[in-house]
Amino acid sequence: MVNQVPRGDGSWQSFKSDSSGASTSGGDSSKDSSRCSTPVLEADRSDRLRDKMRRRTESGDRWFSLEFFPPRTASGAVNLISRFDRMGSGGPLFIDITWHPAGDPGSDKETSSMMIASTAVNYCGLESVLHLTCCNQTTHKITGYLEKAKRLGLKNIMALRGDPVGADWEEEEEGFNYAIDLVKHIRSEFDDYFDICVAGYPTGHPEAGSYEEDLQHLKEKVDAGADFVITQLFFRADTFLKFLDDCRAIGITCPILPGIFPIQGYQSLRQLVKLSKLEVPEEITKVIEPIKDNDAAIRNYGIQQAVQMCRVLLDSGKVSGLHFYTLNREVATMEVLRQLGLWTEDPRRPLPWAVSAHPKRRVEDVRPIFWASRPKSYIYRTQDWDEFPNGRWGNSSSPAFGELNDYYLFYLKSKSTKDALLQMWGDELMNEQSVYEVFTCYITAQPNHRGHKVMCLPWNDEPLAPETNLLKEELEKVNRRGVLTINSQPNINGKPSTDPIVGWGPAGGYVFQKAYLEFFTSSENVTALLQVLKKYEPRVNYHIVNVHGQNRTNAHDMQPNAVTWGIFPGREIVQPTVVDPVSFMYWKDEAFALWIEQWGKLYEEESPSRMIIKYIHDNYFLVNLVDNDFPLDSCLWQVIDDMFELLDTTTFSFVYKFFI
Amino acid sequence: MVNQVPRGDGSWQSFKSDSSGASTSGGDSSKDSSRCSTPVLEADRSDRLRDKMRRRTESGDRWFSLEFFPPRTASGAVNLISRFDRMGSGGPLFIDITWHPAGDPGSDKETSSMMIASTAVNYCGLESVLHLTCCNQTTHKITGYLEKAKRLGLKNIMALRGDPVGADWEEEEEGFNYAIDLVKHIRSEFDDYFDICVAGYPTGHPEAGSYEEDLQHLKEKVDAGADFVITQLFFRADTFLKFLDDCRAIGITCPILPGIFPIQGYQSLRQLVKLSKLEVPEEITKVIEPIKDNDAAIRNYGIQQAVQMCRVLLDSGKVSGLHFYTLNREVATMEVLRQLGLWTEDPRRPLPWAVSAHPKRRVEDVRPIFWASRPKSYIYRTQDWDEFPNGRWGNSSSPAFGELNDYYLFYLKSKSTKDALLQMWGDELMNEQSVYEVFTCYITAQPNHRGHKVMCLPWNDEPLAPETNLLKEELEKVNRRGVLTINSQPNINGKPSTDPIVGWGPAGGYVFQKAYLEFFTSSENVTALLQVLKKYEPRVNYHIVNVHGQNRTNAHDMQPNAVTWGIFPGREIVQPTVVDPVSFMYWKDEAFALWIEQWGKLYEEESPSRMIIKYIHDNYFLVNLVDNDFPLDSCLWQVIDDMFELLDTTTFSFVYKFFI
Repeated sequence: MVNQVPRGDGSWQSFKSDSSGASTSGGDSSKDSSRCSTPVLEADRSDRLRDKMRRRTESGDRWFSLEFFPPRTASGAVNLISRFDRMGSGGPLFIDITWHPAGDPGSDKETSSMMIASTAVNYCGLESVLHLTCCNQTTHKITGYLEKAKRLGLKNIMALRGDPVGADWEEEEEGFNYAIDLVKHIRSEFDDYFDICVAGYPTGHPEAGSYEEDLQHLKEKVDAGADFVITQLFFRADTFLKFLDDCRAIGITCPILPGIFPIQGYQSLRQLVKLSKLEVPEEITKVIEPIKDNDAAIRNYGIQQAVQMCRVLLDSGKVSGLHFYTLNREVATMEVLRQLGLWTEDPRRPLPWAVSAHPKRRVEDVRPIFWASRPKSYIYRTQDWDEFPNGRWGNSSSPAFGELNDYYLFYLKSKSTKDALLQMWGDELMNEQSVYEVFTCYITAQPNHRGHKVMCLPWNDEPLAPETNLLKEELEKVNRRGVLTINSQPNINGKPSTDPIVGWGPAGGYVFQKAYLEFFTSSENVTALLQVLKKYEPRVNYHIVNVHGQNRTNAHDMQPNAVTWGIFPGREIVQPTVVDPVSFMYWKDEAFALWIEQWGKLYEEESPSRMIIKYIHDNYFLVNLVDNDFPLDSCLWQVIDDMFELLDTTTFSFVYKFFI
Repeated sequence: MVNQVPRGDGSWQSFKSDSSGASTSGGDSSKDSSRCSTPVLEADRSDRLRDKMRRRTESGDRWFSLEFFPPRTASGAVNLISRFDRMGSGGPLFIDITWHPAGDPGSDKETSSMMIASTAVNYCGLESVLHLTCCNQTTHKITGYLEKAKRLGLKNIMALRGDPVGADWEEEEEGFNYAIDLVKHIRSEFDDYFDICVAGYPTGHPEAGSYEEDLQHLKEKVDAGADFVITQLFFRADTFLKFLDDCRAIGITCPILPGIFPIQGYQSLRQLVKLSKLEVPEEITKVIEPIKDNDAAIRNYGIQQAVQMCRVLLDSGKVSGLHFYTLNREVATMEVLRQLGLWTEDPRRPLPWAVSAHPKRRVEDVRPIFWASRPKSYIYRTQDWDEFPNGRWGNSSSPAFGELNDYYLFYLKSKSTKDALLQMWGDELMNEQSVYEVFTCYITAQPNHRGHKVMCLPWNDEPLAPETNLLKEELEKVNRRGVLTINSQPNINGKPSTDPIVGWGPAGGYVFQKAYLEFFTSSENVTALLQVLKKYEPRVNYHIVNVHGQNRTNAHDMQPNAVTWGIFPGREIVQPTVVDPVSFMYWKDEAFALWIEQWGKLYEEESPSRMIIKYIHDNYFLVNLVDNDFPLDSCLWQVIDDMFELLDTTTFSFVYKFFI
């Protein structure tokens, strides 16, 4: 029996009871009831796309998605990935990548649709939809593409027929003739694994017998298993709203996303219209024709026209999500979204690092601090793990160091040219001090002695994070003296989770950090440092290693030390960042390799500059320090001061010799 | 190759590298490298006894262990278990329980050696050694005992021959004739599962041919697989030290613990001497005989004599642990240990709750807050779990409520008599206010109107915890008005882990708590409370349930809320206590049952007093509240104030009626 006693407010829950009055669990099992692992912060991280869409729609949220096409060149790919990072910050519900059969879209090339979608999911953390066209493809080939997509962590497919090649296209008895065949194939071969999107045509497909016939085709595609619809572009809000009503009228109940095309230029409009066999309404051509040579004016008009149309759609109450054809450009779409108030550049992050969208990684909730500036490298090096953070580190066959190659090299290589790097890092190094200067200039954001700003280092592809800026003065001082810092964080004792610089996680919480400092320094310095660190037990944890793997640490049983954590209303503790002595030994391979691969190799072999870098690579130590006493001012600067003081005393010369 | 570069300080560790210079993990796998679950705090919790002993000895620590015999009666068992709790607080490395074949020692009776040892391990968290004698036992029976011991979580056996029954004892060809047979049997049948202790005789076994022959027997027992030795009692330090040297000389290298017998009375000394066939040295009889009728004087002498002897043993540098024959008494042994400085009553706890010593539970690191005052009940109800806290709650066949029975009932029943309970809780209740008064008197530790102090409640077997005392004033106020509190904790914003009241865990850390309050209250109050709580979203998490299982909560996805956590040097976050909405539904069964089982049943059926308790049981709600904003003063008192204020307004009468 169920002890459900109805009440006025109607919201009491009830547990089933058996005759003895004893509770049984609400579900079949309470296995996960009091699990103590760090909890997932956002339902968004575990839901599939169609559920996210439903939840956002039900809660009255408005959202958008972005369509991109694959790049033609490798440098285009690098640019597109940067664009993903920038446009991802505005909060799209998903992005989608188009599929062009002529461009080898399913290959391993860095420019293929498959690899671009995979990068978006795995490295940029974007929920992604991969287009797939079936026309003229064998079942075998299509299944292969789908298997590969699944293997890469893609969960969503836009099922399309694609344009027949040549005019003599005919239906094949056994093949894929229409998108519906692909939908059916996906459902029969992959069950419910993929979320499937199909295309809708607000003015009817150009090849359809009639608008009504085309609507019926859409209904069949949905009935065959599609989860939502994205429409072809259109120029009038009414066109879409009528189409939407007609779809609902014949029983299409799934989400239908209007495809928005902000006019960005005269040529691109003409081309698109030609391809899609659409007609541009007179009210638009009337405006555009007179300004067709003025790109800025056309773009401004396009923005204004799109905003206006989107407002009508949203105000109808029937549309909660908008799909944008970006044409791989940022400005117009971002501006439209900003004007609509949909660009949600929320400075708050669910976790202090960017979460990957790969289904296996979505619940990942702790990472070593070492890869803080190289998250794509961490994701790459741990891509074969089934469970995070409990994977097994690869051995040397992993391409993380030595000869960086292929895909890995491609996505992790510096965005700057060799010339730019030489300008920043020096085309001729005189001695170790030349290297100290580079680090110091990077920290201070001041030009080097040749007048060039140092915008990146081999370990940091971006300028200093705002958080690191808090430590700027101290960092400058120590780098000048050869404590070459590559990673650090200040201590934080309970700042609100909404803090614009150090905050993360849901509102109403508090975030904490232990002070962290990681640097390369000479073996002479390390010998002094080890003396000094005895005074700081157990307050400071350290781990010191050279390129040969010789290392010293006072880590307790080689256990990780949590250095970033958050306390939130109604949740378990979240501890997303740790200093882990085991993974540090794998990070050190990468950290030392970057000296040679990214810096040393800029110079001729045997050149003095290269020898200096090699000397540092061979002889310096990589050091990490954690100050466990987070409520107090960090003592790590005092540790470094003490080290220099010890080095400056004559007494120490003796100690130093003794240690060598 | 191994890149081990020898250095002066000799303490650099090295990682193996292969030819490409890449690291492989120090061990075969780094599976556990960056695991994020709450870490084990003490190696003591995972080590087996022999390893703990070795570690303590190597580190120069001094330690002790305590021997008890099983009680004869059920009330003796209750007393002995309380003694375990008290003497356990002094920090024994282990306790051991003797085995008396005539007393049904392997049975399920609450007085059996087996069940007493099991209780010590499982409920008192004490590392325990179970004695086992083999003389006159079949292999089948012995194996059965060992299997049962293993099943109950016992890990250590003291293997003894035992006293032959009758004078006509003869060796049996196939049976167990000597302790060594039992040692061999354990090792052959249970491999390395058990740690095995054997007995040593500093003056030679009374039945041995010679002292030297007996030493050889001991060596054979150790060679057969014993891990350490405890000696028979002796009266002179020299006796033991000579024995120890002789053991070492013939190659017995394992720990040998001197058995210390503080003389506690004339009769017990005589009896023991007779049983063990020892002679009391003249210097002792000379002192004792004249004072043989003065118990206090003998005990004082015994303490002084034991302290003196122990000092000689410890000062020899050959002894690091002392084993005490307590005779189930506390005073003498505790006093000896105090004078030796070995009684380590460390107010700091590894976790805020007592850790069970069961091998499966040793790594348990999070519990729901609800059983804070009833940890033995929590352990009992979750005894079949294989993994903590991820077990499956039992259904009504679990004896947690309704008819409490057998073992469960025995160990959880109130220590007070029915009369004492009636004096405290009232032999005649007039109305609900009579119940409010009982709660209020418990909180204030003031006598009730009949002049009796209320020392316990059905949910709290002990007076208020020091921590709860911090909240006394507020608690009194609300209990007086029918907010019947049964569990609470103040908020703590980073107190040192060494704090005498709220501290726990290793030194150098910081502990935190969210304010917590749990109480029974009327449905009228709850209706007002729910109104009030709307103002406190999301700051306050609540869960409200009645005996029928109707419940309301704002817990996020039914996830646990961490309410106690600690940050320690070089470790991951520890979060030992959660408010878990799932287990709350199981706790509520127990919490409501206690009204009837422990309170209501004190009165005649149908009596007004019993009807009042039954009314509360049937109609009140159990409420828990968490204030998530731990850095601020708790708002929970304000919530209760607001509730009463709302109840006091006329406006609310309408709301109230509407809700009913």
